[in-house]
Amino acid sequence: MVLGLGTGSTAKHAVDRIADLLHQGKLKNIIGIPTSKKTHQQAVSLGIPLSDLDSHPIVDLAIDGADEVDSNLNLVKGRGGSLLREKMIESACKKFIVIVDESKLVPHVGASGAMPVEVVPFCWKFTQDKLQSLFDYAGCVAKLRSNNGGEDGEIFVTDNGNYIVDLFFKKDVGDLKIASDAILRLAGVVEHGMFLDMATTVIVAGELGITIKNK
Amino acid sequence: MVLGLGTGSTAKHAVDRIADLLHQGKLKNIIGIPTSKKTHQQAVSLGIPLSDLDSHPIVDLAIDGADEVDSNLNLVKGRGGSLLREKMIESACKKFIVIVDESKLVPHVGASGAMPVEVVPFCWKFTQDKLQSLFDYAGCVAKLRSNNGGEDGEIFVTDNGNYIVDLFFKKDVGDLKIASDAILRLAGVVEHGMFLDMATTVIVAGELGITIKNK
Repeated sequence: MVLGLGTGSTAKHAVDRIADLLHQGKLKNIIGIPTSKKTHQQAVSLGIPLSDLDSHPIVDLAIDGADEVDSNLNLVKGRGGSLLREKMIESACKKFIVIVDESKLVPHVGASGAMPVEVVPFCWKFTQDKLQSLFDYAGCVAKLRSNNGGEDGEIFVTDNGNYIVDLFFKKDVGDLKIASDAILRLAGVVEHGMFLDMATTVIVAGELGITIKNK
Repeated sequence: MVLGLGTGSTAKHAVDRIADLLHQGKLKNIIGIPTSKKTHQQAVSLGIPLSDLDSHPIVDLAIDGADEVDSNLNLVKGRGGSLLREKMIESACKKFIVIVDESKLVPHVGASGAMPVEVVPFCWKFTQDKLQSLFDYAGCVAKLRSNNGGEDGEIFVTDNGNYIVDLFFKKDVGDLKIASDAILRLAGVVEHGMFLDMATTVIVAGELGITIKNK
């Protein structure tokens, strides 16, 4: 089984558990496809056999966390910065299981914080301004991500050598497919953190137990 | 006047001529925005005052060549490798003048050769295969660009640290806006070389003289 290995605090636990089950012999013939350099390092240190999309273009299952999940199981991902590799791998999955706690359930995309956009470093400020203008109607504020979160911090650089512009929306942006295409049409944008129609199952951990939502 | 400076053999002559006119005093108050590192070097060596999109987000006029021009003045650009920066700058133009010889006029996009797509290096082969599949109906063959054009050559790297996958179409791909969105929706794609509805004027040099086409 080819298994996409997610990135972030929730996915880290899943990767640990996969390694446990492998070493106990309860899982066999697993090939992991890590979604970030960080997860790659973790998986190597745990002895999980690894490959990549070039060698294994079809992924049976991916397991990952998310920053937001809306009522249609659309996601916001990338607050940890790994959105591009996650999206490449999770787009290639037959099944994509997302694990979140109930604080991640939102009425609409961007309701709890940033929707990240990966942009090329060349004239990032121009691209940032274009992104903000695009969602003027939703009270958008666009901010370049820095390592310490402050204005004067060192610029955050992705695994692909790009920057992240975080979009903060005051209101619902409306049709997400239209919003997605509008972002992708901007030259200078590499990818965005809206994962639309991708999750097949969302597992939600709440105070009263586990809820499973299937697409 | 803020002037976008194109890249390639045709644009090089235009940049030389702009420098001549500046030094003769026939042009004044010009700020150039170069569309590549190469044009930046040329403009610096010629003493043209330069800036960038971050400081000058509105460009009055850009002048550039093109690899193909169709009957609706849609372009293919990027066979020289500078499509992303060219598209960022030429998207920000009030007027965009394209200069070509008549060999560049084509019945449809891709009729004379490659339509280049800039992709992230991570799992480029996966992205290349996705691009080829997307245009299977047009007999598409996708090839990673190398520096010497051969199969074993060193991989060509863009000014932005990315790779280029050249798409060769056997047939017309049909609706270009649909094709554009389909390419941009692939995670792993940064930008493509179709410049749709961007040129405001195309100047065509032919054996019998100059033809000017306006949008």
